[in-house]
Amino acid sequence: MVCPCQKGRSLILPMTRYKILVEYEGTPFVGWQFQTNGISVQGVLEEAILNFSQERVRVEGAGRTDAGVHAHGQVAHFDLLKAFTSHKVQEALNFYLRLHPVVVLACEIVEDCFHARFSAIRRSYRYIILNRQSPPALVKNRVWWIPKPLNLGAMEHAAQYFVGQHDFTTFRATGCQASSPVKTLDRFDVQRYEDQIWFDVEARSFLHHQVRNMVGSLKWVGEGKWQSETIVQALEQKSRIAGGPTAPPEGLYFLKVIY
Amino acid sequence: MVCPCQKGRSLILPMTRYKILVEYEGTPFVGWQFQTNGISVQGVLEEAILNFSQERVRVEGAGRTDAGVHAHGQVAHFDLLKAFTSHKVQEALNFYLRLHPVVVLACEIVEDCFHARFSAIRRSYRYIILNRQSPPALVKNRVWWIPKPLNLGAMEHAAQYFVGQHDFTTFRATGCQASSPVKTLDRFDVQRYEDQIWFDVEARSFLHHQVRNMVGSLKWVGEGKWQSETIVQALEQKSRIAGGPTAPPEGLYFLKVIY
Repeated sequence: MVCPCQKGRSLILPMTRYKILVEYEGTPFVGWQFQTNGISVQGVLEEAILNFSQERVRVEGAGRTDAGVHAHGQVAHFDLLKAFTSHKVQEALNFYLRLHPVVVLACEIVEDCFHARFSAIRRSYRYIILNRQSPPALVKNRVWWIPKPLNLGAMEHAAQYFVGQHDFTTFRATGCQASSPVKTLDRFDVQRYEDQIWFDVEARSFLHHQVRNMVGSLKWVGEGKWQSETIVQALEQKSRIAGGPTAPPEGLYFLKVIY
Repeated sequence: MVCPCQKGRSLILPMTRYKILVEYEGTPFVGWQFQTNGISVQGVLEEAILNFSQERVRVEGAGRTDAGVHAHGQVAHFDLLKAFTSHKVQEALNFYLRLHPVVVLACEIVEDCFHARFSAIRRSYRYIILNRQSPPALVKNRVWWIPKPLNLGAMEHAAQYFVGQHDFTTFRATGCQASSPVKTLDRFDVQRYEDQIWFDVEARSFLHHQVRNMVGSLKWVGEGKWQSETIVQALEQKSRIAGGPTAPPEGLYFLKVIY
């Protein structure tokens, strides 16, 4: 589809760009991104596309997720020389993906200037803690299990210190490649659902490990190891060692991308 | 604990009876009940009890679940000659169960006349259909996937014909051992939660495959293959061949037992 902004690649080659909405269980993967040391979500998607279209393409995702991190609504795009209906692409991908815990929930043909990563204006993640004495059976590998009761009110209060524009150096992975540590958080809700605590966070974009590092510190607040206000001091320190632990990947879900 | 009704076994042997609340993922099991052809939930529980107490006991469950059926709140009991605190029993069981998707959510010492199966006055089950075009990734093996849209209103209406006292011959497994096919359903709610449909059903007790057979017929109603009223005729026929298909086990959850 030729884009109205005239920046599209279709001016050079007659390609069709497909946008897909993807759900996956992160447990068996080395992460979203292709790596040589194991299977990746990107890799199995590219393999499935090759199998049905005979075209070897690069699939671009809205966000890279780490090994073990899940997605309810990752978004990705890719280009094909042959033109298929979006329905056909979705059906064929799900057929070739059937041995992996990855499914395409929706597919549409988009303008050539659409980019899963660069066109995104908002991303949301959910982190789930299972807060009960007994370990998980039905949600194994899908939550962070914390047996001791956490103080929900304190965590909810503390989470609000993250909202707004801040230098998140304390809460980014030391190897994070982003050019600036300044990000703007639009929302950080903490709610209990039965024996789970859900941390819902929204921003235009996030630093590497930012959600997991924020949740790790909030867990310290919930345990009483930190006061809610310690978050403010930790942000001010601008140093990863001033932050709490990195929450494990299995509790994290990439929920939604808005364009 | 000696029971006030004086029917307890402790009059003969000084045993302690433990009641446990159990969560499990049914996928890897041949079912609740011990069988020689694979591992059972009952079997791994008995093994865990043997490992920590050195006593070989029989664990009695409130209800037998088939292979692949899950539980949020199965209840069981067993007797030990040695006396442990309930907390110790729960901790030790969860330690020895750690390689299986089975956990003890609660444990208490009960009177000797308590029986997980015979003392139960109400049981509840949930059946989950994933009703969306794409197969499940995050809830694989935990739902029945139906890609075509089902008519929720028609299923909800039809489900009410099951409520009350009926002869459920049409909806019991042909090999069902129960002495009478007459059961009383207290509740049958059908609700949509995003892309899932939850069937919540409550009764004192159920026949073998009763929930799965009722849900299989409701699916036919949802597809328009049956009218809601066809349920009434099917009940009247009192023959399994007058009923719809048996819904697969992976969508079924044993939720709760009331004593």
